[in-house]
Amino acid sequence: MEPVFNTVAIVGPGLVGGSLGAAIRERGLAERVIGIGRRETSLQEALSVGAVDETTLDLRKGVREADLVVLATPISAFGQVVGEASASMKEGAILTDVASTKQHVIKLITAALKHRQDIVYVPAHPMAGGERRGAASADANLFEGSPCILTPLPETPQDELNRVRELWKSVGATVHVMDSKEHDRLVARISHLPHLAAAALLETICAGEGEMAGGGLTDTTRVASGDPALWRGICETNAGEICSALEAYAGVLERIRALIAGGEFDEVEELLRDAKKRRDDLLASRERKDEQE
Amino acid sequence: MEPVFNTVAIVGPGLVGGSLGAAIRERGLAERVIGIGRRETSLQEALSVGAVDETTLDLRKGVREADLVVLATPISAFGQVVGEASASMKEGAILTDVASTKQHVIKLITAALKHRQDIVYVPAHPMAGGERRGAASADANLFEGSPCILTPLPETPQDELNRVRELWKSVGATVHVMDSKEHDRLVARISHLPHLAAAALLETICAGEGEMAGGGLTDTTRVASGDPALWRGICETNAGEICSALEAYAGVLERIRALIAGGEFDEVEELLRDAKKRRDDLLASRERKDEQE
Repeated sequence: MEPVFNTVAIVGPGLVGGSLGAAIRERGLAERVIGIGRRETSLQEALSVGAVDETTLDLRKGVREADLVVLATPISAFGQVVGEASASMKEGAILTDVASTKQHVIKLITAALKHRQDIVYVPAHPMAGGERRGAASADANLFEGSPCILTPLPETPQDELNRVRELWKSVGATVHVMDSKEHDRLVARISHLPHLAAAALLETICAGEGEMAGGGLTDTTRVASGDPALWRGICETNAGEICSALEAYAGVLERIRALIAGGEFDEVEELLRDAKKRRDDLLASRERKDEQE
Repeated sequence: MEPVFNTVAIVGPGLVGGSLGAAIRERGLAERVIGIGRRETSLQEALSVGAVDETTLDLRKGVREADLVVLATPISAFGQVVGEASASMKEGAILTDVASTKQHVIKLITAALKHRQDIVYVPAHPMAGGERRGAASADANLFEGSPCILTPLPETPQDELNRVRELWKSVGATVHVMDSKEHDRLVARISHLPHLAAAALLETICAGEGEMAGGGLTDTTRVASGDPALWRGICETNAGEICSALEAYAGVLERIRALIAGGEFDEVEELLRDAKKRRDDLLASRERKDEQE
């Protein structure tokens, strides 16, 4: 493929950042990928799995020549990282991120960029990653067939948006563009709610009981093996929408409980049939996408 | 392996019944496996995948020579099937089942056997199956490494219990023995609750939204693709314990919601950390079991 960027700097080349680096390198989408981190061991790991071409512990130096800077650290570090990086970023460089929540992050980053109006920030959220961590799990095909949501600001220029879109399409993602508020509401339901629902299941089951379960419990709770600090950050920065999603979920669960307690099993079966159909439709829409590619 | 039974009759050789038949045949655990059903096409399917040696639509004839009769139909058919089969079963034959709920089923079957006190009923629940259906999905290794819970009655003789235990161990299951009340309470939490939690997630998410989700949602809701009629039967026959499990789950979800709404993110992270540990422990206990085998 044609390079989309000359130099890409990835701040925090862990699972998602490292996979993006590996995907860019494997597909020749940039001349050079620089990994920037705070610990030499993590950077060596990123280097050894082929996620980056070179590494540095020096943030300002690392971003200096980058046409695209990708923030892939925990959200809690965004303010400080952008504040520091923006002081030495190239004129007109693009800044993007891979965080799971967008409204809060946009506020944080636009504030940190207030003295650098020439830098174009394009918020992005690749919906991939899973429960693993670190560059050791980086995978150049992680984004193949996964959605990636871009949530441009009203003032984001079309050219820069298109270049970031092109990058995600080139690494195999299906790109959606929407408003950051719509994004946060959506992911609260399709991503954050399933995570908390899984964690709550594990908290409901007593110690030792789970060992007797079939594969259903293991699958249903897979996402709960995700990094607690990362998910804390997600809860913290999308609290309102997550609480609404939890309330809606509690309402559906209470409806099911009342049907069972009331002996209304025709309605229970109807609801289970509808849920099965929704999941079958979900899988079918995925397969259609795979065929189109 | 040594045959454990001479003739085994499987009433309803679908996914679970057919997998048991295939496992018995592959391991030489019986001289003969007879598949009994109501539709010729299903029986031909069971025969063609090697789940049974012979088939019949005639229940009374099919069970006549069996040393072990396995009930693998939906629970709703149990009363009628046992009433009819018991009229022609061999003196001292063993009857077992593979149903997911036990107290209700035990009442049903002991009532249907009241004129045949010589038949020994050993209730069993193999925790395997997943969301597929029919003998076409039968798998001789379905029970490898899966738990199988036996819930003998106080009057169940040790010899017959041991023979059924031996059969399940021989097809690869890890056998647990417990009281039927304890069983129903346990599976309400580790199996029925995850199913309803998954169905409720799908009902909470609006049509089309799920297409934008990562793999987390697909995994979390996998069990919801199970057969609605089968799960209706489970809800119907374990209603009390399922409602208690749903209440406990709702309580945990509300605790999480209140922590997020109240901005108590240290506690949120602590809870997520605990849930992750519970799941990691669950996986580790599985791996230990695999190593021991």
